[in-house]
Amino acid sequence: MLNRQAETFIGCERAYDEADTVMFGAPFDATTSYRPGARFGPKAIRSESYGIETYSPYQDKDMAETAVFDAGDMALCIGDAKTALEQIEAFASEIVTDNKRPVMLGGEHLVTLGVVRALVKKYPDLHIVHFDAHADLRDDYLGANLSHAAVIRRVWELVGDEKIYQFGIRSGDKSEFDWGRTHVFTCRFTLDKLEEVIKKLADRPVYFTLDLDVLDPSALPGTGTPEAGGVSFLALLEAIGLLSKLNVVGFDMVELAPNLDMSGVSTAVACKLLRECLLAL
Amino acid sequence: MLNRQAETFIGCERAYDEADTVMFGAPFDATTSYRPGARFGPKAIRSESYGIETYSPYQDKDMAETAVFDAGDMALCIGDAKTALEQIEAFASEIVTDNKRPVMLGGEHLVTLGVVRALVKKYPDLHIVHFDAHADLRDDYLGANLSHAAVIRRVWELVGDEKIYQFGIRSGDKSEFDWGRTHVFTCRFTLDKLEEVIKKLADRPVYFTLDLDVLDPSALPGTGTPEAGGVSFLALLEAIGLLSKLNVVGFDMVELAPNLDMSGVSTAVACKLLRECLLAL
Amino acid sequence: MLNRQAETFIGCERAYDEADTVMFGAPFDATTSYRPGARFGPKAIRSESYGIETYSPYQDKDMAETAVFDAGDMALCIGDAKTALEQIEAFASEIVTDNKRPVMLGGEHLVTLGVVRALVKKYPDLHIVHFDAHADLRDDYLGANLSHAAVIRRVWELVGDEKIYQFGIRSGDKSEFDWGRTHVFTCRFTLDKLEEVIKKLADRPVYFTLDLDVLDPSALPGTGTPEAGGVSFLALLEAIGLLSKLNVVGFDMVELAPNLDMSGVSTAVACKLLRECLLAL
Amino acid sequence: MLNRQAETFIGCERAYDEADTVMFGAPFDATTSYRPGARFGPKAIRSESYGIETYSPYQDKDMAETAVFDAGDMALCIGDAKTALEQIEAFASEIVTDNKRPVMLGGEHLVTLGVVRALVKKYPDLHIVHFDAHADLRDDYLGANLSHAAVIRRVWELVGDEKIYQFGIRSGDKSEFDWGRTHVFTCRFTLDKLEEVIKKLADRPVYFTLDLDVLDPSALPGTGTPEAGGVSFLALLEAIGLLSKLNVVGFDMVELAPNLDMSGVSTAVACKLLRECLLAL
Amino acid sequence: MLNRQAETFIGCERAYDEADTVMFGAPFDATTSYRPGARFGPKAIRSESYGIETYSPYQDKDMAETAVFDAGDMALCIGDAKTALEQIEAFASEIVTDNKRPVMLGGEHLVTLGVVRALVKKYPDLHIVHFDAHADLRDDYLGANLSHAAVIRRVWELVGDEKIYQFGIRSGDKSEFDWGRTHVFTCRFTLDKLEEVIKKLADRPVYFTLDLDVLDPSALPGTGTPEAGGVSFLALLEAIGLLSKLNVVGFDMVELAPNLDMSGVSTAVACKLLRECLLAL
Amino acid sequence: MLNRQAETFIGCERAYDEADTVMFGAPFDATTSYRPGARFGPKAIRSESYGIETYSPYQDKDMAETAVFDAGDMALCIGDAKTALEQIEAFASEIVTDNKRPVMLGGEHLVTLGVVRALVKKYPDLHIVHFDAHADLRDDYLGANLSHAAVIRRVWELVGDEKIYQFGIRSGDKSEFDWGRTHVFTCRFTLDKLEEVIKKLADRPVYFTLDLDVLDPSALPGTGTPEAGGVSFLALLEAIGLLSKLNVVGFDMVELAPNLDMSGVSTAVACKLLRECLLAL
Repeated sequence: MLNRQAETFIGCERAYDEADTVMFGAPFDATTSYRPGARFGPKAIRSESYGIETYSPYQDKDMAETAVFDAGDMALCIGDAKTALEQIEAFASEIVTDNKRPVMLGGEHLVTLGVVRALVKKYPDLHIVHFDAHADLRDDYLGANLSHAAVIRRVWELVGDEKIYQFGIRSGDKSEFDWGRTHVFTCRFTLDKLEEVIKKLADRPVYFTLDLDVLDPSALPGTGTPEAGGVSFLALLEAIGLLSKLNVVGFDMVELAPNLDMSGVSTAVACKLLRECLLAL
Repeated sequence: MLNRQAETFIGCERAYDEADTVMFGAPFDATTSYRPGARFGPKAIRSESYGIETYSPYQDKDMAETAVFDAGDMALCIGDAKTALEQIEAFASEIVTDNKRPVMLGGEHLVTLGVVRALVKKYPDLHIVHFDAHADLRDDYLGANLSHAAVIRRVWELVGDEKIYQFGIRSGDKSEFDWGRTHVFTCRFTLDKLEEVIKKLADRPVYFTLDLDVLDPSALPGTGTPEAGGVSFLALLEAIGLLSKLNVVGFDMVELAPNLDMSGVSTAVACKLLRECLLAL
Repeated sequence: MLNRQAETFIGCERAYDEADTVMFGAPFDATTSYRPGARFGPKAIRSESYGIETYSPYQDKDMAETAVFDAGDMALCIGDAKTALEQIEAFASEIVTDNKRPVMLGGEHLVTLGVVRALVKKYPDLHIVHFDAHADLRDDYLGANLSHAAVIRRVWELVGDEKIYQFGIRSGDKSEFDWGRTHVFTCRFTLDKLEEVIKKLADRPVYFTLDLDVLDPSALPGTGTPEAGGVSFLALLEAIGLLSKLNVVGFDMVELAPNLDMSGVSTAVACKLLRECLLAL
Repeated sequence: MLNRQAETFIGCERAYDEADTVMFGAPFDATTSYRPGARFGPKAIRSESYGIETYSPYQDKDMAETAVFDAGDMALCIGDAKTALEQIEAFASEIVTDNKRPVMLGGEHLVTLGVVRALVKKYPDLHIVHFDAHADLRDDYLGANLSHAAVIRRVWELVGDEKIYQFGIRSGDKSEFDWGRTHVFTCRFTLDKLEEVIKKLADRPVYFTLDLDVLDPSALPGTGTPEAGGVSFLALLEAIGLLSKLNVVGFDMVELAPNLDMSGVSTAVACKLLRECLLAL
Repeated sequence: MLNRQAETFIGCERAYDEADTVMFGAPFDATTSYRPGARFGPKAIRSESYGIETYSPYQDKDMAETAVFDAGDMALCIGDAKTALEQIEAFASEIVTDNKRPVMLGGEHLVTLGVVRALVKKYPDLHIVHFDAHADLRDDYLGANLSHAAVIRRVWELVGDEKIYQFGIRSGDKSEFDWGRTHVFTCRFTLDKLEEVIKKLADRPVYFTLDLDVLDPSALPGTGTPEAGGVSFLALLEAIGLLSKLNVVGFDMVELAPNLDMSGVSTAVACKLLRECLLAL
Repeated sequence: MLNRQAETFIGCERAYDEADTVMFGAPFDATTSYRPGARFGPKAIRSESYGIETYSPYQDKDMAETAVFDAGDMALCIGDAKTALEQIEAFASEIVTDNKRPVMLGGEHLVTLGVVRALVKKYPDLHIVHFDAHADLRDDYLGANLSHAAVIRRVWELVGDEKIYQFGIRSGDKSEFDWGRTHVFTCRFTLDKLEEVIKKLADRPVYFTLDLDVLDPSALPGTGTPEAGGVSFLALLEAIGLLSKLNVVGFDMVELAPNLDMSGVSTAVACKLLRECLLAL
């Protein structure tokens, strides 16, 4: 009775000093243009994670074998994207400085930029593996260049050509697809070309950013901008297995909007994917 | 500031005179026997269409290349199927007379009858391609012969034998399947035989009626009478591509009940399908 | 006007004496650890069954050909698992004594134990075919040995080794999988090995227990503990067809929580599966 | 186990022959112009009634003291108001002929017309007490004269001037209020003048029609056209007590749309009001 | 068929040039700290307004007597409060320059600042009548000084002491109440002192800002930060009547979050209040 | 970054040793007969408490002035009422032994029995102040004597006649009211007689049990068994103020079912009431 109740993702029980991975929530969705709610994602994932097991029969591994510290949610400056990104960058930099791996739960996709800024300082050769329904390659969106719809373009400004590998992309305006052709690798509609990319990336430092709307909306309806025609849960699960061969120096999972799926299934799917990522990567 | 805000489906910006296609909503669901809400379909599709892009990476086409006038929703006589159908027929006739192609957003499936009545006058050889979970071949339903469950039977009375091609059918009473065997072509459960039918129809005038419940409920839960075991979004997308080879003189998309799917996914799916239809047909 | 309105599953119109199968609801979910609502399952299935047809185009059979008496819901002692199971056992025993086949609608999975207790007295060689996402093989759960998470372990205590065949299992703690390896047959993730098991079981007496969460949550989101990566509706439909070759002396369908899926799709799926089971088994 | 499970409103256990009151559902809402769902009202009231007690501490009476037969829901012709009203009239006439009192659960308000037609034949001097937010005095609505918005005008055509007493009215177009001034008694906004009207009506035969939207939406959000500024539950309860002094030869309760209030409160309120009406009238 | 369908608030049919009042939506909620959704407010109000009448029996006036142009929703820079406020200020300035009265539909409360900036240039003596549950007097909130929780403090910086009159306030931190004591007039919990304030304000130019959460959550649950203990609908209606005695040079209605109240009642209440405001002010 | 994120009710920041009050959750609802969900109450209250302020303008006090330790939720034996009550009793006894005051968040009403058992050992003269819509005086319910519907009867067995004071009661079967007349004090429908009871209780040790369904469902729809005709929020707030004159040695707040009110208002109301209780008592 002497301790307050801590809320962590299931099986993330390590103290900070003993952890090799530090997970945190970035509950920010101020630039969401369509339907907000991604701010509720990290809290929902942590809270609902007790509905799954710590053991994965897919990998025959248990969360007890991991060393993850769950730092809870950041208190971000609401409604000011510039400040919020600086806060995330500072927080992630501290983790990186302590030689731990950052794992971020969004929030909208823009938050990815904060962690990439922190990692690229340590890993100038950082490569990006990007699963998403949307290209996110706009130069600006409704007058804002810090926008969820422009985040990968901003990341490109940091890492440059031939560093970004997109998969599952099935939405964007024409200019995004045109621009992308010469600056990033894009596997449209599916994750099919992942294996060949993995061979290519060998042991380069990789940041994996998983926008959950890469899944078909039947598998995950609870996201701000659902796009039919996505990948199945099993295809994504298999891809995560493949990614375990890479040198993943950080990853994030973004765009769960639990308020949009009252059945709770979307959050349950996100919990299971997070467990599989933590066990595999 | 001088103009009122118009609400149209994304990219349907043409003036009436410049349009080759006229889209309108038929917000009628009075004969829905089970769960109403299809009346809210067209408004939801228009309103939520700003969540998708005008560009289709599937067809590499943009709505800017189309010439569609969106006439908004009709003010139909609520609760009186006979009058409502007459209103739809009159409205569609005007479009047809102006040598434009009618595209109708339902509403329940019964509204199809109004447009078919208008088209069959111009195209006595009209053929029907019908995607649906339900045969809709009853002679009457609960004493009413103007019913969503009898609409294709009513259409048959106008076009006759060997003109109606049904796909995806997986529900009906025994008598419907029995009757159908001698009067219509039925591809049960799937869209598999579409290609052979397309060859057969060559350049005959075709009306395409898409009851969205042909999709599996996992892809589109927001419909009045969901039937498990349906076709996938990708299968339907492919079929729409095949239909582009036909001479489609009009089409409709019916039975979206957005109030039944609070995640918004069903409406988003309908928006994407409508975009693909408008680009393909 | 002289008779009260009875509520039965569609097409279950037989009087008790003329029936060979007796269906009843066990609206109990007191040991549900995560999200309750399975108690509402049987009532929802009965009520929403008028949204489907009595005829199955898959089997070309009609409910009119069956002889099922629907006894409605039991009035179970809420909040006391021991008493509730005794009530179910007594009720099922009466059915078995009258040489009729019991069909139970849950409720949570624990209710299965009550019927198995009744059947094993008549069929000492009873075999169990178990479709589920979860192994349910714990020895106890949160201090309770009468728990939905321990129900198959309790069943094993009645039927012994080499009698239980699990399919679709994709969640459990490590100890459950370890224990299971020597006591039950487990087909993980899929229903693939069903055909070989069916050959093996020949005409042994079989109890079929269908936990609806064996389905992927995209097909059936309305269940207490959804587990991504499940089987599709069509795969399950095919499996039910295969089971018709067995000597099924009773079956149940459990864990529909209709309150968790406001689209109504989960209940509609359960209704269709129940119709197919009643026609096939 | 020999009887099917009947679903009745709580405490309505009498056989038809022993009953003095016959309750039935009229699940019709085809002319609802705004938001449908009243068709689900009677079923929800019956189903949820087991959440309240049979005993009223307000009146110190128990449903066991009443003699009500619950005939369940009529199977009305969906989507054809004219036929549906004829069906209701025929059904109610049978009840009236058997010297029993009809109690109808709507459905939309139009269904009232069917019962009034039946009653006015027996009671040419029939008076109407009408609780509602809306005047319902239109001559027609969107071209239909059989409409929920015109029902009291249609009733007036049967009973004539000085027979209709409206209470709680707070919505209508100007012409309705103008017309009403010379043909009906209207107490706007409240039920305050009920006592004086009751004195006036003495023992004339009275039909009481209770449109639940007379309540403030805070008390009953689940109705098709909620109108703020309504009466409180306690004021309505008190009014029902006053009505017990009248010779009420039939009554109805309409416009509960349970699908619009997922908290279940609206249905619970309707159940309690129905109990109080059955005990008081 | 030649015109696109315009969506306006019911009865706001005037052309811009003929209007004395210009209504517009400001769909912005990026600084909402708790539960977003106010961005959906103006669209919902316009769309659902066809569920009420144009005639008010409270004031015996009809919207046909008003001269309001509904300009639709602004396209605001999402996620950047500074830019969005500048856009609103520019838009409102244009209205004011044309000698028309601006009426704004929020959006979160911060949008009020944009219109006040426009009005204070024309009316240096501008007074503010502020109905709200929250004081909104923070100097900053989570590091942002452009925040819904600081908006009235920002307004005070423009208009100064003794110009702001708050009513219904029942939430704030201690420092807000302390600061407010010397800078603004505050009527806590109720609207009771409105009459005396109205006398005082005589014909000074007044901006009326109505945060809908001043209402009790039972009357309007659909708002981001519901605060129990608020004023009733009827009390607010009466207050709006009193305000008609003032020289109201502009007003807004903010913080409706229709997504948070799926019964639709909150939007219906807002529609009715907007009609009453437009008729009274 | 070194500490895990603790989740506590807003302002409950004290360490256990420095606290005079210990709050804990009892997430148990296994005997709920109608609609479960009270198990989610304490977690929702803690989680949503950041939507209110720590300062109360009603009492001009701040949570910073209190000394409350929030121990989080107990891990109760699900589905076994007897064991769960023993766990609660043991936990509360420890708090009482440490000379701290227990504050429990339910859960269903049965959990009250656990704390009363602990307190009555220390305070043999314990009096009970009970706010509720339901009498809860049944001797058993559906065969279970440990039931939410029998909890006050069980409490009476511990404290005896003339110790229990009920307020707001408006539902029960006739036998409960009859039995209650000779064993407990009951103020039906309202809280009106609270002041006279408070005088009588002087400084006797009092346990206050607040079943939130004492509120009218318009104020708090999110509860398992809503009963129209309840007290208003302001009346309850005032009553809590009056209770501050008593010697309250413990209290609980039960029966919030947040899953039943998706608007979040019910949880917000509960948070505000809990703040007021903690500040007043």
